Amino acid sequence: MQFADRLNAIETSAIRELFKLLGKPGIISFAGGFPDPALFDVEGIAESTAAVLRTQSSAVLQYGATEGYGPLREALSQFMAAKGATVPPEGLIVTTGSQQALDLVGKTLISPGDKVIVESPTFLATIQCFRLYGAHLIGAPIDADGVDVDRLEQLIAEHRPKLVYLIPTFGNPSGATLSLARRKRILELAVRTGTIVVEDDPYGELYFDQAPPPSMLALSDSVPGNRDWLVHCGSLSKVLSPGLRVGWMIAPAPLLARATMCKQFSDAHTSNLTQATAAHYLGLNRLDAALANVRRTYAERAGVMAQCLRQELGDAVSFNAPQGGMFFWARLTGEGSGNAVAGPDAAAFAKRAIDKLVAFVPGAPFYCEQPDHATFRLSFATSDLAKIREGMQRLGQAL
Amino acid sequence: MQFADRLNAIETSAIRELFKLLGKPGIISFAGGFPDPALFDVEGIAESTAAVLRTQSSAVLQYGATEGYGPLREALSQFMAAKGATVPPEGLIVTTGSQQALDLVGKTLISPGDKVIVESPTFLATIQCFRLYGAHLIGAPIDADGVDVDRLEQLIAEHRPKLVYLIPTFGNPSGATLSLARRKRILELAVRTGTIVVEDDPYGELYFDQAPPPSMLALSDSVPGNRDWLVHCGSLSKVLSPGLRVGWMIAPAPLLARATMCKQFSDAHTSNLTQATAAHYLGLNRLDAALANVRRTYAERAGVMAQCLRQELGDAVSFNAPQGGMFFWARLTGEGSGNAVAGPDAAAFAKRAIDKLVAFVPGAPFYCEQPDHATFRLSFATSDLAKIREGMQRLGQAL
Repeated sequence: MQFADRLNAIETSAIRELFKLLGKPGIISFAGGFPDPALFDVEGIAESTAAVLRTQSSAVLQYGATEGYGPLREALSQFMAAKGATVPPEGLIVTTGSQQALDLVGKTLISPGDKVIVESPTFLATIQCFRLYGAHLIGAPIDADGVDVDRLEQLIAEHRPKLVYLIPTFGNPSGATLSLARRKRILELAVRTGTIVVEDDPYGELYFDQAPPPSMLALSDSVPGNRDWLVHCGSLSKVLSPGLRVGWMIAPAPLLARATMCKQFSDAHTSNLTQATAAHYLGLNRLDAALANVRRTYAERAGVMAQCLRQELGDAVSFNAPQGGMFFWARLTGEGSGNAVAGPDAAAFAKRAIDKLVAFVPGAPFYCEQPDHATFRLSFATSDLAKIREGMQRLGQAL
Repeated sequence: MQFADRLNAIETSAIRELFKLLGKPGIISFAGGFPDPALFDVEGIAESTAAVLRTQSSAVLQYGATEGYGPLREALSQFMAAKGATVPPEGLIVTTGSQQALDLVGKTLISPGDKVIVESPTFLATIQCFRLYGAHLIGAPIDADGVDVDRLEQLIAEHRPKLVYLIPTFGNPSGATLSLARRKRILELAVRTGTIVVEDDPYGELYFDQAPPPSMLALSDSVPGNRDWLVHCGSLSKVLSPGLRVGWMIAPAPLLARATMCKQFSDAHTSNLTQATAAHYLGLNRLDAALANVRRTYAERAGVMAQCLRQELGDAVSFNAPQGGMFFWARLTGEGSGNAVAGPDAAAFAKRAIDKLVAFVPGAPFYCEQPDHATFRLSFATSDLAKIREGMQRLGQAL
């Protein structure tokens, strides 16, 4: 059987192989990117599902519009307004998780050979998704304040990319947040150079102490013409439930129309049952309390992880403590590793960690080019404080 | 904004434009491909949703496996077994409606320029879906017994296609059902020529009097080696509810693995809530009764439509009465039209029909090449008997 050429661009990831090992009994895993299911508002979701099946069953169980279920588009418009971004209901389409928004960005915009700039490191599934459409990915360096805008400007000038993809707030895997000043510069850069910027924002609500800078979408109202170049991908996965598969895409009208057409032939539409459930839930006024609980819990876990990471691994690991999201991005410094020649190797460290019954994800696959093999990602979202303490101890032993 | 080249292969369909007119007050529509929402088993679905949120909320609301929710893969394996096809749970993946199965067929198999043979006419969204992956479509002629196998064999020899796509049972739009003898010949042809055959089977359960021939998948067990070349797409949309967006894909293991990988970057996974709901529902033993009701209702509607079509349009229209499914495929014969030069034009007829407040879909867009402009499609699924009678009268007036 001869498969399509596009499959040559990707390979089963090292991470997927690693995940097969996570079934080992007794393992403590910081590898996933999952929210804590104990924090799901099951009661509110069950109430919503029952309500929409009671009152809107014909619409909910029937085929629906590719653009999305009307009441959900209304509810998401209000949700975005509460975060400072003006988007009419018809200015967004509902997607089957924000992963599908990325797929539609690829399908509508990327021709084979087109250049796309991403953060280095960035979300692994974006790398693979865009490569399936033939993208040639170029990595832009980041620091704790997000992407380096001077370097980004040079890369845009040099490569004339089809688009720039960013996770500006509590990035995956970096945990970094793009500063307000950099956000504004990138918005101006997009207009000046006529470059599409895709803002992927699944984590923005998961802040610890104070809210992050406004999204680039929210800021774009103050930069004339910017909306013509900005795509924003949102998701309820980290806010309400990933199992519902409800995301959305905001884009200039001509792009949104083409994304809708492509979605029609990708999956016709997103489940009306989950869309209607989400719409009803957003009208219940339960989300603020549920989110406050998530923020408090994750903040506490992140705090303990930072403390234990310093205590157990000391100088051997460097990291920037994130202000929200789900991830620590760490780096083996080489101190105490006795492996000065080849440089520290997080993949080898991950294997030793599995032997000590603790798991995390090595960082190299998150780079589209020139991977830093010393990096790795730790998620603090799903483990309680005792497990984080125990896991960090095991990590210290594995080192 | 410069869009991807692949978008040049498709256009907003004439049908989409037509559907905008369907909001006209008082219109009777035979245009859609929707099931009748009055036949949905709302009670059974609501019971299922409540049950899975009560007993499996952590799994149902969390991220899930790209391959599908375990209990649903088990239930679908049993569902297929009841239809005579042996498929282990790991031999299928769950898709976001069967439309996504088509998308994954395209993504994993079709390189730009690859040839694909489809029935002429065939499902419009398949034409568009495959063209987005760069397929060069070739139409194989059909009659009331499905695709012409002699001609198909010639086309395979001539074009060496990447795959052949068929809707063998109660086809859309044709209503035709591939005969048992032809099914067997095509299975042998697939093995002999090393050609992938995709069997799309959303309508097989919607038979009127007697069950159709076994699916090609069910028959394939008797043709050695055939499973290596057969892909089967199934769906609960016409059986239970389209709003759930639950379909599935059965394929040889190497293809299924690649489709899973592609799905990971398309939408991560299908909603666990809808998957778990479907799995629970299939265990309730309500489906047989619900389906019996659907079959009885659709059979009655199809019978009345056939009768009224003959009565109101007489010699002006020819058609084969289907034995199941949702569609009549009809053809203007030119009798009584007074338009002998250009030949009868179903698109013009559709416009006159809209003026008389009755809608259907002209047939030309269902052809990937050499359209027959005299054809049109009528769905009998969503209109009650009085509306079918009234609608056929209006159609007679429009003629």
